[in-house]
Amino acid sequence: MRVHHVGIAVLDLDQSIELYRSVFGAELLDRKANEKEGLEAAFMRMGDSELELMAPMREDSPVGKFVARRGPGLHHVAYAVTDIRKALEDARASGLELIDKEPRVGMHGGRIAFIHPKSAGGVLTELVEA
Amino acid sequence: MRVHHVGIAVLDLDQSIELYRSVFGAELLDRKANEKEGLEAAFMRMGDSELELMAPMREDSPVGKFVARRGPGLHHVAYAVTDIRKALEDARASGLELIDKEPRVGMHGGRIAFIHPKSAGGVLTELVEA
Repeated sequence: MRVHHVGIAVLDLDQSIELYRSVFGAELLDRKANEKEGLEAAFMRMGDSELELMAPMREDSPVGKFVARRGPGLHHVAYAVTDIRKALEDARASGLELIDKEPRVGMHGGRIAFIHPKSAGGVLTELVEA
Repeated sequence: MRVHHVGIAVLDLDQSIELYRSVFGAELLDRKANEKEGLEAAFMRMGDSELELMAPMREDSPVGKFVARRGPGLHHVAYAVTDIRKALEDARASGLELIDKEPRVGMHGGRIAFIHPKSAGGVLTELVEA
């Protein structure tokens, strides 16, 4: 596996894109709203990985609640896998609690699944088939 | 720049190494204690990046306080830079607050510096000359 992306909760998406572009040299790849999740996301290239900047669109969205509770900052980490069904089955067999028991389609268009932070040392962990 | 490593605060270093090895396919590269920082760290290869697992050795250490306040989980992200003095100067010129105004030698043996999370959207950000 490799680090597919690091998910970062932000307050102001434009400001954050500019920070990561000008200071850290990340390149904006795409930007889109996800009404269902109540967030707007920017995907930025950082070497072989990406940064996913996520700004809440509503206070009662998952990212809105995260920001209200902990402030903006590191939100999740995603690993690229070649076979997400096998990776999920391995994770489940190792005793990890799956948020998504079946892969679902993520904002990139590829298949993703989240593992519950409670069972992964407090880290919200995403698998991305890539 | 690229993601050099993702820093994760953990409670039990052995358990965490085993989790990242068996479920996520990371390879243990090195493990060492840092008495000054009051932590024991494991460095694990994850594609072109690394995971740095950090377990507190004392409750009053920086990582011990982090874990007491927020629980285990994502702690910092580090980007690889070719010239850390220039990267630090660029960060400072962009208004970021530096924890390390001058590069210092990190646990890897290379030069590192931290940027204060307050000025970087809540993300404790490390630069690593690599």
